[in-house]
Amino acid sequence: MSRADKVASLARRRGFFWPAYEIYGGVGGLYAWGPYGVVLKNKIANLWREVFVYKHDFVEIQSPDIAPYVVFKASGHVDSFKDVMVSCRECNRKYRADTLLKEHGIEIREDLSPSDYEDLIRENNVRCPVCGGKLGNATYFTTMFQTIIGPYSENKGFLRPETAQGMFTEFKRVYEAMRKRLPIGIAQVGKGFRNEISPRQGVIRLREFDMMELELFYDPSDDECPYLDDYLDEPINMLHKEMIERGDLSGYETMTVKDALDRKIIDNSWMAYFMILSHIFLEMLGIPRTRQRFREKLAGERAHYARKTFDQEVYLDRWGWVEVSGHADRTDYDLSAHLKNSGVDIYAERRLKEARYVKEYEVRPRVRDIKRDFGDKVGVIMSRLSKSDVNKLLDSFKRDGYILIDDIRLDKKYFDIEVKVKKIESEKFIPHVIEPSFGLDRIAYAVLEYAYNEKGDRIILSLPAYLAPYDAAVYPLLSKDEFIEYARGLYDELVKSGYKILFDYGDSIGKLYARGDEIGIPIAFTVDYKTLEDDTVTVRDRDTWVQYRIDKGRIQEFIEKILGGIGFEEAAASMKLELI
Amino acid sequence: MSRADKVASLARRRGFFWPAYEIYGGVGGLYAWGPYGVVLKNKIANLWREVFVYKHDFVEIQSPDIAPYVVFKASGHVDSFKDVMVSCRECNRKYRADTLLKEHGIEIREDLSPSDYEDLIRENNVRCPVCGGKLGNATYFTTMFQTIIGPYSENKGFLRPETAQGMFTEFKRVYEAMRKRLPIGIAQVGKGFRNEISPRQGVIRLREFDMMELELFYDPSDDECPYLDDYLDEPINMLHKEMIERGDLSGYETMTVKDALDRKIIDNSWMAYFMILSHIFLEMLGIPRTRQRFREKLAGERAHYARKTFDQEVYLDRWGWVEVSGHADRTDYDLSAHLKNSGVDIYAERRLKEARYVKEYEVRPRVRDIKRDFGDKVGVIMSRLSKSDVNKLLDSFKRDGYILIDDIRLDKKYFDIEVKVKKIESEKFIPHVIEPSFGLDRIAYAVLEYAYNEKGDRIILSLPAYLAPYDAAVYPLLSKDEFIEYARGLYDELVKSGYKILFDYGDSIGKLYARGDEIGIPIAFTVDYKTLEDDTVTVRDRDTWVQYRIDKGRIQEFIEKILGGIGFEEAAASMKLELI
Repeated sequence: MSRADKVASLARRRGFFWPAYEIYGGVGGLYAWGPYGVVLKNKIANLWREVFVYKHDFVEIQSPDIAPYVVFKASGHVDSFKDVMVSCRECNRKYRADTLLKEHGIEIREDLSPSDYEDLIRENNVRCPVCGGKLGNATYFTTMFQTIIGPYSENKGFLRPETAQGMFTEFKRVYEAMRKRLPIGIAQVGKGFRNEISPRQGVIRLREFDMMELELFYDPSDDECPYLDDYLDEPINMLHKEMIERGDLSGYETMTVKDALDRKIIDNSWMAYFMILSHIFLEMLGIPRTRQRFREKLAGERAHYARKTFDQEVYLDRWGWVEVSGHADRTDYDLSAHLKNSGVDIYAERRLKEARYVKEYEVRPRVRDIKRDFGDKVGVIMSRLSKSDVNKLLDSFKRDGYILIDDIRLDKKYFDIEVKVKKIESEKFIPHVIEPSFGLDRIAYAVLEYAYNEKGDRIILSLPAYLAPYDAAVYPLLSKDEFIEYARGLYDELVKSGYKILFDYGDSIGKLYARGDEIGIPIAFTVDYKTLEDDTVTVRDRDTWVQYRIDKGRIQEFIEKILGGIGFEEAAASMKLELI
Repeated sequence: MSRADKVASLARRRGFFWPAYEIYGGVGGLYAWGPYGVVLKNKIANLWREVFVYKHDFVEIQSPDIAPYVVFKASGHVDSFKDVMVSCRECNRKYRADTLLKEHGIEIREDLSPSDYEDLIRENNVRCPVCGGKLGNATYFTTMFQTIIGPYSENKGFLRPETAQGMFTEFKRVYEAMRKRLPIGIAQVGKGFRNEISPRQGVIRLREFDMMELELFYDPSDDECPYLDDYLDEPINMLHKEMIERGDLSGYETMTVKDALDRKIIDNSWMAYFMILSHIFLEMLGIPRTRQRFREKLAGERAHYARKTFDQEVYLDRWGWVEVSGHADRTDYDLSAHLKNSGVDIYAERRLKEARYVKEYEVRPRVRDIKRDFGDKVGVIMSRLSKSDVNKLLDSFKRDGYILIDDIRLDKKYFDIEVKVKKIESEKFIPHVIEPSFGLDRIAYAVLEYAYNEKGDRIILSLPAYLAPYDAAVYPLLSKDEFIEYARGLYDELVKSGYKILFDYGDSIGKLYARGDEIGIPIAFTVDYKTLEDDTVTVRDRDTWVQYRIDKGRIQEFIEKILGGIGFEEAAASMKLELI
């Protein structure tokens, strides 16, 4: 069995994830996450919030999954968010064209048109992989789920393929509620939906998935990220354009962040900052940096909204390098598109470094004089004047010395003209956007694959302690009342202190340990004969199975060390525990 | 302005929630939650998990929002989840029939058919509220969002109207991963979708909303809730069937949980437990118990899957009594429906109290003898025997002394008949389900409405401290460098200790306080001249504006007390702080 199969098997058996709706034969691309899977995903999402959102005083919003047609028309998704599909002329099965060709070992670019695909299919004599039939014409298939909002069939809507549009459509209100400060990061943790043609890669390619997205809005005239300095010497793994163009696709080049910027491989300091943060974030999740890289997306491969994009990839057993986050420079593309399509002012404001001064004229009619000389025509005259453009009136005075309203000639003497100097301290502009966007399900899967280990015929899930479904386990050595009672007391005490603890018994201690190891519980405390005499218990390491003796009163101190990321041996040594 | 309008206005201005897609004119029933709103919702959801899930060692899963047609066909939703709609014959506007009649002051039951509505509309001469036109025929409208999953148009799917079906379709796998223990609570916090005909009640009636649902699976032969004892004397507010039937709808009758059970108003101990827990849960959120009640749903009002239902209602300013949670006895309805429709074994198993013993017979042909006497017919004989029912063979021997296979007569002597006694220790059954189901958006709204207060022309959001968007604020009295620097140091220190703190300056202290009060920050620490001399700061109460002096070193102790639910005055008194 491949590592991927083993992980999937463990995930299903122990309740991390499995194909949803299995009792009805399942639906491609829809998975259920079980008890331990949900805990893992929630922990990853909360760590992401810490690292990307809270640390910078950024904010999180929640916009709807359903959007009206106009939003994704404006954003360009209706026109660009589609895959090329081919159908078998015989059995009518439908395939995603690029996947089909790749499975035939044909290397393709990401920006091919339907007719390009038809040519390739003909040239390579590709046939239906199920019935062997001839393939028909290639067509575009919109990979957004469509629906109707409400009872009127013309009110088409989509399930969002990214959370990001919510940050753009709601930008102005968030910007104002947050007191118009830039830069501002607006994050969203929520569902994305992509109506894939034929997804067959487990939780790697889902039709419904959790995203963690951050849109960093900044003033393009002030684009320096203030947090970058501390990370300039950090190594970053780059598969950059130059490597890709010379066909060097298998690995990456490690350089410092500073080098990447100096060589203009990365050309935006916010993007560089979020990329290195993402390297570190995945390391915190147990995925070594050596198994991560940033792949530059070439012109035809980038989403329609992006000036520049890097995919953060992780090496996975079955699928090779797989994207887990995307880093896009979306410029002012989205805000400009919504501004244009909605006609609503969604500009930001910046203070000018130096105030500008502009002259403003006011032309005030002398109503009493006009009434005296023109009688009851004054009403028409005043009404017309109120609708007139000040500059046109001034031009007319300058050119002719008077203005005409219908046939009435009004000399300059009927007006007071005043000049004011107005101080302009701010100007409007459209913010630019850097977007780091993460796929939570893929990351959770990658975490499980990297945590998966075997020891003899036993499985150990070596999750970082702070990602484990329980902080620790408490077991009685034997299912005897006095052991169970003591263990339950210890369990209650730890739960009351806020720890998540598994308390289990009824099987041999070996079986209990084995089950705990499989779901990744980092430490196990066991109550035995000696415990009843001297209030010490054994503490066992999930990964090495080494055991020490620890005073009951020092258990919380030990758990704290492990949750803080200190290794088991080191924690035991620092507390001078006795090896068993 | 009504209280509801004031809350909506504050929510929009300060970033709690607002109608989504406003730049495109908005979409009915779709709202965005902003920075403070998301924090509030997340805090409520986490408290719910503590109270309903973690405390009982229940589990949380995440199943897809999208389900194939078959799931909601089996569950009965395709047939039952619909509203009656009428269209105007003139302008073609569409209305939900019950809402339209209620707005005309016509009291209606919840179980009327389209023709009932047509009669009522005719009798009361109800017309289109927009154009005054005549209304057409009433029809059913399915209030589930429909979509197509993948490229085949026959693969219809729905957006789930409740998370609950996920707990039923995935029950067996969770039950097995959790080692087949009952009772088990399976929870889900996630989206629900209802394609309302014409939603016009803000966040009270959404087309897309967050649900917190718990399905408690239990063995119907063992239906006692082990947690109920501690709550039997708690008062619970009931609007029960008897009151409703005598038309007494405006209030409720307060009784103890024990009384409600003794009087058989509530007839299931798990349901009683979750109901009283819900009373307490909403109290923890700042909604007094006197403004809550449980309304019994009568026969025609209950969802198709429920034997008995109570709605937990909260009294709101504009809308009166509004449902915020539903408590349904779903019996084995859903699991049985999926068992029947899928044909897959989704039974649970129970150990029998006493093992049963059954006799099992085995009839073994003596192949060598048969071959000797019947030659090459042995093949046919053996094949037919292998497909024969043991009991039929035994009957035949009993009756005739032989069996017939085609024309061949086989006497008893060609067989060995063996009797075994089999011990049966367990049996299969379908668990029953009690469901408490909460609407997170409505609850968050109710929390805001109950927290909303005014003091003169100022707004104070008196949220329980543990629900506030920040634990505390830190301000410099004046925007002077030495104050700002000190305040920033204090801010850094508190953030490092894990608190969520607002650090703000640049406006007068009065404005800073006012802004903090509006979003509900319970306490403010202000750095002033005295601080620089003696390391004390002022600490100010959001609700009373009272101020005390506190040593910088005791600030965390003070915050802990406030977060723990202790009142400001009490906390100050217990720490002997000096009143200013």
